[in-house]
Amino acid sequence: MKPLKQGNITSPLGFKTNALCCGIKRKKQDLALIYSITQARAAGVFTTNRIKAAPVKIDIKSLKQNKAQAIIVNSGNANCCTGKTGYADAQKIVRVLAKDLDLKPNDVLIASTGVIGKYLPLNKILNNIPGLVKGLGFNKADKTALAIMTTDTYPKQLAVEIKLNGKKVTIAAVAKGAGMICPNMATMLCFITTDVHISSAGLKAALAEAVDDSFNCISVDGQMSTNDTVIILANGLALNKQIKNKGKEYRVFTKALKFLCLQLAKMIIEDAEGATKMIQVSITRARSKKEAKQAAGAIANSALVKTMIAGENPNWGRIPASLGQADISFKEEKIKISLQKKVVYQNAKPVLPDKDVLIPLLKKKQVNIDVDLNNGDYSHTVWTADLTAEYVRINTEYS
Amino acid sequence: MKPLKQGNITSPLGFKTNALCCGIKRKKQDLALIYSITQARAAGVFTTNRIKAAPVKIDIKSLKQNKAQAIIVNSGNANCCTGKTGYADAQKIVRVLAKDLDLKPNDVLIASTGVIGKYLPLNKILNNIPGLVKGLGFNKADKTALAIMTTDTYPKQLAVEIKLNGKKVTIAAVAKGAGMICPNMATMLCFITTDVHISSAGLKAALAEAVDDSFNCISVDGQMSTNDTVIILANGLALNKQIKNKGKEYRVFTKALKFLCLQLAKMIIEDAEGATKMIQVSITRARSKKEAKQAAGAIANSALVKTMIAGENPNWGRIPASLGQADISFKEEKIKISLQKKVVYQNAKPVLPDKDVLIPLLKKKQVNIDVDLNNGDYSHTVWTADLTAEYVRINTEYS
Repeated sequence: MKPLKQGNITSPLGFKTNALCCGIKRKKQDLALIYSITQARAAGVFTTNRIKAAPVKIDIKSLKQNKAQAIIVNSGNANCCTGKTGYADAQKIVRVLAKDLDLKPNDVLIASTGVIGKYLPLNKILNNIPGLVKGLGFNKADKTALAIMTTDTYPKQLAVEIKLNGKKVTIAAVAKGAGMICPNMATMLCFITTDVHISSAGLKAALAEAVDDSFNCISVDGQMSTNDTVIILANGLALNKQIKNKGKEYRVFTKALKFLCLQLAKMIIEDAEGATKMIQVSITRARSKKEAKQAAGAIANSALVKTMIAGENPNWGRIPASLGQADISFKEEKIKISLQKKVVYQNAKPVLPDKDVLIPLLKKKQVNIDVDLNNGDYSHTVWTADLTAEYVRINTEYS
Repeated sequence: MKPLKQGNITSPLGFKTNALCCGIKRKKQDLALIYSITQARAAGVFTTNRIKAAPVKIDIKSLKQNKAQAIIVNSGNANCCTGKTGYADAQKIVRVLAKDLDLKPNDVLIASTGVIGKYLPLNKILNNIPGLVKGLGFNKADKTALAIMTTDTYPKQLAVEIKLNGKKVTIAAVAKGAGMICPNMATMLCFITTDVHISSAGLKAALAEAVDDSFNCISVDGQMSTNDTVIILANGLALNKQIKNKGKEYRVFTKALKFLCLQLAKMIIEDAEGATKMIQVSITRARSKKEAKQAAGAIANSALVKTMIAGENPNWGRIPASLGQADISFKEEKIKISLQKKVVYQNAKPVLPDKDVLIPLLKKKQVNIDVDLNNGDYSHTVWTADLTAEYVRINTEYS
């Protein structure tokens, strides 16, 4: 597996893209189109929030055919909590774009991100569809990466190359994150393009595995968006022998896909709203995978732990205090807690490493919290960001 | 029921208190004693965090006898995650104080609040016990209210008077809060004194009811402390006919106790770390009490909702987005959401009240969020505070 320099969603064969400013935002790109020159196998993973945005509902229906050829994305407005009008608006966009591209509406997917509870400026979008299609190109991925951003401070894109039966296969992705990212669904928007030839079952299984080990392992603020979307399009133009949902080739492909998703997930945490540090919370020897996840989440979503890390403050007692709130089983006497690989708590008592040791270690950009529950065989790791006054400022002002 | 002007924990008959600075904090009172001149019926409610501080473990044991006569409290150190040493330290304090007061150790309860994971400065406390006992008085409640504070900005105390069978009965309480307060246990430290004559079963039932409808309905940051403690001492000196765990007198007493606890709970929210506003989240017509609580908690603990209120920002879409994360059942088309009593979302679409209407309403000190789930008969209300940069500052620096 080889990461590609300046790799992007047009690195795999047969993908074009374009982006422009349609006027949802002032003078910033806010509308993007991703297009495969042939119909592609498609799969998606969406928010598990009980309130789902209109585009999410449409994509879930359209993806029942396991195929798609285009994705239209707007930023600045989530088209969520907008009722029948919002749903009809999204359908209209899909139908108009499908007509312009000479596709069936089911072949066009749609995603939105931004403010909840406002109607889309429909005509601004519709009026710009002809220009969006006309301008499709193989060298415009950077524009698309910018157009899907909301409070991100930099675009997030990546591509990797693998060999399958001697054929070169490329997988690429573009993502936006920033706030509202939490495990158990996780994510933000992420669009993955690949020229691999793969069965629908294989594509679904690979995407589910990759998302579970990447986007579902990150959390910014414990908040799960109504619009979270990961879509993969696989157009088969690499002409490799078709991958099924198991076997060596499946594993090579899935491993590369996981790598790609995890790199993007980490970029999202690194660029979380107001974040100054990445926090890695690793739970080992839990009684079940579920308990490992709950323990990691309780620590990673603790405002007290996250502010402690922001302050480079060795007040580690907040780690067992947040762990104790998780609905899991452990014995106080058996657990071990480490901060930056220094044991701080073991045998139910403080190990009390010198503050002079901990404080310099906490100045690093990445902070590791390791909890050995000593109660089973299951592990889980999540990544989160620290909580800063800047996070509060961004979310106080954003409207 | 009549609130007493300048009422405090020495307002009920037979209670003395004292506080001093033993040196855990620099030059601030940090050690307090509450004492009944006769043995009292006693009951307690404690944190459900799986990590419990040493004093909590001791009190749970001692309260099996349903009686107590004294409570010693220190601030500045939680004596939590301190293992056998911490437990032995707390036992030692209890034994030394019991001897000085001529009580059995079981009659002395103990509470601590402050940093987790540090051993108590045992000798500083032990050396000050004689002075603490010698100085006990009927007019020192204000000192005690100050001594139990950590990041509180003002002391919290209150007393009310009721009549039971013609006898005057007084109930009073002192509390400290600020951070780490969350429903499902809720609380901070709260010590309640009363001269009511009541059975042990009656006292336990009344306390459980009162805590459930007050401290368990507030949340600052979704964090549950390892030290949360509510203790009530009822010494019977009002000489009313003994109350049992039901009947008219039980109901009058419990209603007054609930009122007292709710007033203190609201003071805690008002004085939450960095808070500028109180947020009241009311859920109606949920399918069960459990679902009503989960819905209220999902909204009240959402960082995005709390920053929105801090910013007086009418971006109400964050309310349905946080509601959708709760593990409850509802139909998007049937729910109704109001902000400051203005409907903002109904029939699965935005009602879009004019921003010019919402923004001035959001400038008020209390913000009401009402969610009608239209799915059953159960209601629940919680109170929380907004999330400000000041909260982050306090928790970044505190050590």
